Amino acid sequence: MSHTPHIEKHFTSGEIVRDTVIGMADGLTVPFALAAGLSGAVLSTQIIVTAGVAEIVAGSIAMGLGGYLAGKSDVEHFDSEYKRELYEIEKMPEHEKDEVLEILEDYGLTKAESQPIVDSLAKRPKDFADFMMRFELGLEKPNPKRALQSGATIGGAYVFGGLIPLLPYIIFSEVRQALLWSAAITVVALFVFGYVKGQFTGAKPLKSALQTCLIGSVAAGAAFLIARLISEN
Amino acid sequence: MSHTPHIEKHFTSGEIVRDTVIGMADGLTVPFALAAGLSGAVLSTQIIVTAGVAEIVAGSIAMGLGGYLAGKSDVEHFDSEYKRELYEIEKMPEHEKDEVLEILEDYGLTKAESQPIVDSLAKRPKDFADFMMRFELGLEKPNPKRALQSGATIGGAYVFGGLIPLLPYIIFSEVRQALLWSAAITVVALFVFGYVKGQFTGAKPLKSALQTCLIGSVAAGAAFLIARLISEN
Repeated sequence: MSHTPHIEKHFTSGEIVRDTVIGMADGLTVPFALAAGLSGAVLSTQIIVTAGVAEIVAGSIAMGLGGYLAGKSDVEHFDSEYKRELYEIEKMPEHEKDEVLEILEDYGLTKAESQPIVDSLAKRPKDFADFMMRFELGLEKPNPKRALQSGATIGGAYVFGGLIPLLPYIIFSEVRQALLWSAAITVVALFVFGYVKGQFTGAKPLKSALQTCLIGSVAAGAAFLIARLISEN
Repeated sequence: MSHTPHIEKHFTSGEIVRDTVIGMADGLTVPFALAAGLSGAVLSTQIIVTAGVAEIVAGSIAMGLGGYLAGKSDVEHFDSEYKRELYEIEKMPEHEKDEVLEILEDYGLTKAESQPIVDSLAKRPKDFADFMMRFELGLEKPNPKRALQSGATIGGAYVFGGLIPLLPYIIFSEVRQALLWSAAITVVALFVFGYVKGQFTGAKPLKSALQTCLIGSVAAGAAFLIARLISEN
């Protein structure tokens, strides 16, 4: 494998960061927006805390279990496509060889230039299948242990993110006061989260920070207005 | 490009289905679980409807806007990596050529077999960069128009999915009755959704159906128990 700087960055930022980002982005945003929305409609912080905790439990399980099962199905999908490639390579080698030639033609390579590679791969079915997985299907072999870790990371990040906007509603008994504190600490948390996320994903950190703040604010503002509209009817 | 059946399936099932699945999976599960959770804690369906609608608004905006921005940042990420490849190909062509040889070695190809391809690519920087994007980085060129479509699809699917479990709370005024109807229609909806999803993603439909039912039930059951625990204190 190659060792250019951007590849290494790609690896270190990796899958755990991606899963944390997935869980935290929704965890910070949705419970915050739900609590803000209910603040426009009910007068008891206890109902807001109950709804918020129920949302965090539901959201973290749905996302975490969803991530776990998606990870497992990635492994199954890869394995079944891999078997299919091996089968096709065994049963219709000429057809598969033509496929490689066609794919390489898209990069301006002539049949004469590609033929040595194709002939060489055809002698080693496993290498041939690996090559097709990468090149024809764009699939990378998933780590089977990742599924559980992925689900737990997404779920945990959702819980952690979701408790931040909910804290003020647990501490204060007056809804308006709790809402203001919740908005203040959540905007700060969204900004920090977006900034750090930008550094890991290679986006401009400040732009990323402003984007996550925007998502949280728009979602919370809309939820607030609609909840107030419903409760007034 | 090649025309094997599984490639075509890959294309038709495509990105719109994937976005619908992302939005609908959470949209069916989280509002259902939140409403069920609140059913264990409050006696007014109006509060549950308010909380549910606030959650749907917040969740659909967070996920939809998140999907839109993710789509846009995919395009930016691809473009910046592409420029980097073109730059590296221009400034250090020998290094890039060695990279290709190293990558192809992983598939058991000798330098002699790979050299014609490398020499040919080196004459056409754009084809060389395309080749590296695919092979070294595993990146496919994203469609710039996809971002908006993706965000709207995810958000719309979340709203559609979320309204299903909430309908009984709008129709019935008694919480327990609404909860039972909500559970019944949501389990059916999760089953149908999981079944159809399985057919599109290539998983076994029945297994997929049972999995989505499991996620929804576990999330709702946990939210119900925890909300009841909180409201009893």
